[in-house]
Amino acid sequence: MKHFTTIEEMESDAKELREIACKACIDTWETRAEAQKNHCKFGEDGICCRNCSMGPCRITPKSPKGICGADAHTIAGRNYLRFVVGGTAAHSDHGREICYTLAAADKDGIYKIKDEEKCIRVAKEFGIETEGRDIYDIAKDLALVGLNEYGKPFGTLKFLERAPQERQDKWNELGIAPRAVDRECTESMHMTHVGVMADPAALVRQAMRTGLADGWGGSMMGTEFSDIIFGTPKPVKTEANLAVLSKDMVNIVVHGHDPSVSEAVAEIADRKEFIDRAKAVGAKGINIVGLCCTSNEVAMRHGIPMAGNFLQQENAILTGAVELIVVDVQCIFPALGPLSKCFHTKMITTSPKAMIPDSEFVLIEPSNAEEAAKTIVGMAIDNFVNRDPDRVFIPTHKEEAVVGYSCEAIINELDGVTNSFVEGRGTWKPLIDAIKAGIVRGAVGFVGCNNPKVRSDYSHISMMKELIKNDVIIVTTGCAAQAAAKAGLMSKEARDLCGEGLKRVCKLVDIPPVLHMGSCVDISRILVLVSEVAKQWGINVTQLPVLGCAPEWMSEKAVSIANYVVASGIDTYLGIEPQVKGSSQMMHLITDGAREMVGAGYVIEMDPAKLCAAMIDGIEKKRAALNI
Amino acid sequence: MKHFTTIEEMESDAKELREIACKACIDTWETRAEAQKNHCKFGEDGICCRNCSMGPCRITPKSPKGICGADAHTIAGRNYLRFVVGGTAAHSDHGREICYTLAAADKDGIYKIKDEEKCIRVAKEFGIETEGRDIYDIAKDLALVGLNEYGKPFGTLKFLERAPQERQDKWNELGIAPRAVDRECTESMHMTHVGVMADPAALVRQAMRTGLADGWGGSMMGTEFSDIIFGTPKPVKTEANLAVLSKDMVNIVVHGHDPSVSEAVAEIADRKEFIDRAKAVGAKGINIVGLCCTSNEVAMRHGIPMAGNFLQQENAILTGAVELIVVDVQCIFPALGPLSKCFHTKMITTSPKAMIPDSEFVLIEPSNAEEAAKTIVGMAIDNFVNRDPDRVFIPTHKEEAVVGYSCEAIINELDGVTNSFVEGRGTWKPLIDAIKAGIVRGAVGFVGCNNPKVRSDYSHISMMKELIKNDVIIVTTGCAAQAAAKAGLMSKEARDLCGEGLKRVCKLVDIPPVLHMGSCVDISRILVLVSEVAKQWGINVTQLPVLGCAPEWMSEKAVSIANYVVASGIDTYLGIEPQVKGSSQMMHLITDGAREMVGAGYVIEMDPAKLCAAMIDGIEKKRAALNI
Repeated sequence: MKHFTTIEEMESDAKELREIACKACIDTWETRAEAQKNHCKFGEDGICCRNCSMGPCRITPKSPKGICGADAHTIAGRNYLRFVVGGTAAHSDHGREICYTLAAADKDGIYKIKDEEKCIRVAKEFGIETEGRDIYDIAKDLALVGLNEYGKPFGTLKFLERAPQERQDKWNELGIAPRAVDRECTESMHMTHVGVMADPAALVRQAMRTGLADGWGGSMMGTEFSDIIFGTPKPVKTEANLAVLSKDMVNIVVHGHDPSVSEAVAEIADRKEFIDRAKAVGAKGINIVGLCCTSNEVAMRHGIPMAGNFLQQENAILTGAVELIVVDVQCIFPALGPLSKCFHTKMITTSPKAMIPDSEFVLIEPSNAEEAAKTIVGMAIDNFVNRDPDRVFIPTHKEEAVVGYSCEAIINELDGVTNSFVEGRGTWKPLIDAIKAGIVRGAVGFVGCNNPKVRSDYSHISMMKELIKNDVIIVTTGCAAQAAAKAGLMSKEARDLCGEGLKRVCKLVDIPPVLHMGSCVDISRILVLVSEVAKQWGINVTQLPVLGCAPEWMSEKAVSIANYVVASGIDTYLGIEPQVKGSSQMMHLITDGAREMVGAGYVIEMDPAKLCAAMIDGIEKKRAALNI
Repeated sequence: MKHFTTIEEMESDAKELREIACKACIDTWETRAEAQKNHCKFGEDGICCRNCSMGPCRITPKSPKGICGADAHTIAGRNYLRFVVGGTAAHSDHGREICYTLAAADKDGIYKIKDEEKCIRVAKEFGIETEGRDIYDIAKDLALVGLNEYGKPFGTLKFLERAPQERQDKWNELGIAPRAVDRECTESMHMTHVGVMADPAALVRQAMRTGLADGWGGSMMGTEFSDIIFGTPKPVKTEANLAVLSKDMVNIVVHGHDPSVSEAVAEIADRKEFIDRAKAVGAKGINIVGLCCTSNEVAMRHGIPMAGNFLQQENAILTGAVELIVVDVQCIFPALGPLSKCFHTKMITTSPKAMIPDSEFVLIEPSNAEEAAKTIVGMAIDNFVNRDPDRVFIPTHKEEAVVGYSCEAIINELDGVTNSFVEGRGTWKPLIDAIKAGIVRGAVGFVGCNNPKVRSDYSHISMMKELIKNDVIIVTTGCAAQAAAKAGLMSKEARDLCGEGLKRVCKLVDIPPVLHMGSCVDISRILVLVSEVAKQWGINVTQLPVLGCAPEWMSEKAVSIANYVVASGIDTYLGIEPQVKGSSQMMHLITDGAREMVGAGYVIEMDPAKLCAAMIDGIEKKRAALNI
């Protein structure tokens, strides 16, 4: 069997890079996490309230209520809802920018319509006339209706209609079908203001509604419209881990979330004119690599290598081999600014929403993207001569991966194993049949971040390995996906790590057992997948042997995701505790209480082995209930 | 001279009511504030970050950065912006509900168009065709364009055009002209997500932009559309303080902010059928009184008495004389639920955004408002028999007040002293002339809440008295306005407390020296007033001898207000520190830094006497700069 990079090898690489930082007298997340290790218990338990200036108030046995009378349940509930709003706002505002990019798409510009079929298909969903019209006119209309999903004063989100009828009915019954995306964010902020909502159950319902506005609203538009502009992903080979940085090329790291930035930079860096310029300064060419979700976006569409995930962002710079790191929004350590100053690395921010001290700002927006990207790539090339070869240390570990499994791509693979004489094409039936037969026991959507509270990537990798060994297929996005790629679990050889059933399926369909479905906004792809499987199977989503898992989550986006995944009917297994432990009511409401409301809830367990065992158990229980 | 209720007399009343609570073994804000008195220093200084689950992180000399690398400035800046979002969301979501009420206005329903002239005038501002159309059709169109101000994907807010051109240019130059209201809220939540905006100056700019979306957006629509539906306030007599509760009538307290609820209840309670029902159970009638901004709304339009402000809400129930308290949204102590259970008082929540444990929920929305209000008034009447006269203690202090000074009403008063042969009517010229001449030295807008961190209402009352003694005229809203009313400063006799110049003006125009301009959303009236004065004077707002003051603020709304007041060019004097002290950069940015950006900033001083002296000094400096 091939050697798969172990977590210990990854940790050894990280240790060497940390020593470089130590010599350069610069802090890293490891040193900062060590300095911050005594976390405030009130904050961790969600029972500190800072929503007015009478306080801050903290709940203790001797002070069981805040000054206004809010108790632990109200306070933890309000904090929880605000946490969700932060996540929904981030994903959805990203989706909004994609709408503006779509509106600016131009056949002669840098942003074109690459998937015309999808543009027409989605436009039809929104009731836009498509017959005989120019694709760019259709795209503009689609962008407009998309933008209106953020602010329309009446009705609920259009994409909710993609969910099974049972879910739609449930959301309407509970009053949690989201209206305009921004409205849910604003109303949630209102509800959590001093003297407004005090009922924790209602706060949890609004958290679900706000989360649903992310998953079936902002995120789904982000995904669909990105596919239309940049192309719907198809399986493509790439590599993952820091060794994708090149010793002898101009290295440009794209980092953040909005593909509008990274696509423009990647396109410019691919032009002969710029490659020649790079050669003129002594480089062998230009090497674009990605970090975090931006990496997922460009890897899925172009095979651009993935340098790493959230807790590796400093490590990329610490290699001393990065000429330039260009960032857009979200999950960008402010630490990268001062860190880049310790090396020759140029750090470029591009969004007016995310400026960082000790970096340079080059605005990228649809109207100037081509010119701005040229400036940025030029800056990287010019900076190559400043690289100090004596300070370069690029770890050697990397793994091959096949990425790009959009729903359309998976369906296409499934079609390959369908007997077209007896079955229709373009369905999920082969997957459903494999699950029914028990060859595949079930599926898990692995999502989420890294978090210094747990061993970095260990939960992702160890749990995925255990699950595929137990014939559970994995779909994954975000930092979890990159962990899998770095561990070789997205290589086709990873089928050797699977149980017999899953191994057979992977061989037959010619897929890895862990399918890369994209960035964090692309969890909307998983929603579509699961919904379609439920519809075609003829059962409810809550009945499917399908689970969600975020074992190392850290961001508000992760809790927004967890809310829409649960509200969509999928039990979600968390390896980091949501910060509501100080309220017994809230702990009930997000676990069993949620199951009573929407048929799914959280399972929370900090030990990854136990969490994994609980998931396998959860899948088998769902199977038993279905008599399969 | 008449006796004006002193702060000591008010405190003595409060003490007696606190003793009643003590005997009933129920906590009040005083006991809870005592239990919470050791506030978390990290929270107070704004340097605790809970925006992801890697933390919470706290800034200390030994841990100068959070795990992501965010320093004190980034963390305090993000917390500050989120605080503003809470406030903007609250005010604006209230304004949104008023839009829906306007959309539902019906000549045969409980919500009618009471100010047709204003409806037409505002509709014309929005470019709506008004000629020859039914007023209800115009109102519906206006409601729709109003609702679109929350979510339109292009352009900036329409009401910004009401500001002087200099301000509009400044906002455009700085990139802080707000787009759709909800978009600014969402984008701010995105910017404050982990790994997004790290530049404190940009966070302060976004705080201003978000605040402006409140003042010139959500709040201004709340005010204008409320006037259209419920009538534009005119001077009307009322009374203030707990003695407005009646010993022998059914007492109903309306509390919260949205006049849609209180107007419906007040209208029903005024019907003979219900008064007869009250008499039938032994009461002399129905006595509606208000708390907080709901009180300001119905006092301004109907002279309904004001029972008190924020920190008196429990005291109202503690009198034992309240049959029912009906609340809508914002500033409602969750403590009222359990407190009402200690008395015969029924507590009714009416908004799905603000449900409170230990209360009953009766949904009020435009479609059912009349029926719901009937139910609620009926419940109060039925509850009268449960009042225990032995447990009734109503303090004796109250003061007369003239309230209802909308801009239109003030202009009308000024017209009364204009020589119509030589001057136009409907202008601010008489006020401008008085300020130019120095008879009136300047004006202060007093706003904001109560806060246990300072002696309740003391700052409001003592500072207002000092200012009017120094010939500074006061306009006021919210809890500050109620403080003034309780102290008799809104009675016409209060002119005896003024300096000679202001006394003369008050006598001539026949107004009190402290003008009640409404609820907190009605600070938009002050924006219009100041803008029109600047335009008619021919100088910039920043040059006017006009200041804002919030000496006892506590809510996020207050900081949203402070942001739009400052960004509108008015120096704002705060008696409670914004929670950013842990960042020298943030402290600079909200004071002198803001003055460099927009020509106005905060002055922060906890001692009310010193704060007042600084204000008088500030006014005189503005006068000196104008050579007046």
